Amino acid sequence: MQLQKSRRDAKPSSRGDQTRAGILSKAVEIASREGLESLTIGRLAGQLSMSKSGLFAHFGSKQKLQLATIERAKEAFTNDTLIPSEAVPAGLARLWSLCDLWMKSIEQGKHSSAHFFAAAIFYYGCRPGPIARANTAVMRERLNALKRTLREASRLKEIEPDTDLTEIPGQLTSILIGAYGVFLLGERDAFTEARSQILGRLRSLATDEIPPDALESVKAWRKYLEKIL
Amino acid sequence: MQLQKSRRDAKPSSRGDQTRAGILSKAVEIASREGLESLTIGRLAGQLSMSKSGLFAHFGSKQKLQLATIERAKEAFTNDTLIPSEAVPAGLARLWSLCDLWMKSIEQGKHSSAHFFAAAIFYYGCRPGPIARANTAVMRERLNALKRTLREASRLKEIEPDTDLTEIPGQLTSILIGAYGVFLLGERDAFTEARSQILGRLRSLATDEIPPDALESVKAWRKYLEKIL
Repeated sequence: MQLQKSRRDAKPSSRGDQTRAGILSKAVEIASREGLESLTIGRLAGQLSMSKSGLFAHFGSKQKLQLATIERAKEAFTNDTLIPSEAVPAGLARLWSLCDLWMKSIEQGKHSSAHFFAAAIFYYGCRPGPIARANTAVMRERLNALKRTLREASRLKEIEPDTDLTEIPGQLTSILIGAYGVFLLGERDAFTEARSQILGRLRSLATDEIPPDALESVKAWRKYLEKIL
Repeated sequence: MQLQKSRRDAKPSSRGDQTRAGILSKAVEIASREGLESLTIGRLAGQLSMSKSGLFAHFGSKQKLQLATIERAKEAFTNDTLIPSEAVPAGLARLWSLCDLWMKSIEQGKHSSAHFFAAAIFYYGCRPGPIARANTAVMRERLNALKRTLREASRLKEIEPDTDLTEIPGQLTSILIGAYGVFLLGERDAFTEARSQILGRLRSLATDEIPPDALESVKAWRKYLEKIL
């Protein structure tokens, strides 16, 4: 939203867009490494060897720069953790994929898009203001994606029809965030543990539409996914 | 550690200590609200109406100020989430208490000591340096407290003797951190859910040394705790 708005404010040339994209890539890099609060126009100008006034013309204020950076990080987050799940068959397989991709994003490297938003929840979580709201909105959209996928699984009769699904998106998200927290504390098996917990939740939801032996272990489940893809 | 070292560096008078304590209270307040990175000597001097040079004499550098602030936050964290559990009988009751106190600290207010360190894990988690190490050390000490309490429960025969306990401190910590994450995303029942998950873990560990009906629900467990206190 903010990105589109700022794009209108900036020169509409494709060169201007490229410059903006380059600036925002660096901004996401700084924010991922040092936190969004460390991202000032002066700091970014120094890193890009640009003038502060030039950068100011692109964004107008620190807050607008931060919001555009969140929007850019959100694009990466969507590409990393949401889009690939659309290639997976709808239902519990896609629900798994949404969780698995989030963990893969973390496992890929230190400054992943999944890290960006996990860190932002805790950093901004108890503060007011537009930056906190923008960060929370990205994660709440993700909760909604989990909700939609659960409803699809229910329509496909992969979930027992009378199951109360309201708590499940929060439970899955809690497993992911918790695993990441203890991973950062040095518990290297945290995501192995999380994957088997998530499979356990799937097992407790699944009807016979899913072959029961496919849900026996993460290994069996992965074999099953390969077959249905 | 750092606090003691700096205390030796500062004047040993009790007035000096009081001044230092007052400065560090304000420093913890700023860091809890805005993150440890926002805590500079200039910022703190402004908030305290003190001179930068006066504050510099107390701490010597931003990093030393940050380390002393972590040490002060750790004292609060210990007082809030560790010390009160020592009044609870050793074993599974104390293990519960260690988890419950952490959640109570979060529930008490926005800028709790438990928030301070949860936020710090994610903010510093993937960065090098002494500040990140100091934050992680506080949380790892907590993992060790959980480990010790589990071993005690095992000695008291409240846990089956052949149970592998290595994963449990990480699992409990993951439940707490995950619940806090989704709480910050607006899932208000997150800690209710976490308490019943933690009780579920206790139930799966417990021998008949704990009356089985005490572990049936969080309500029943709280009643049991009132009786044994």
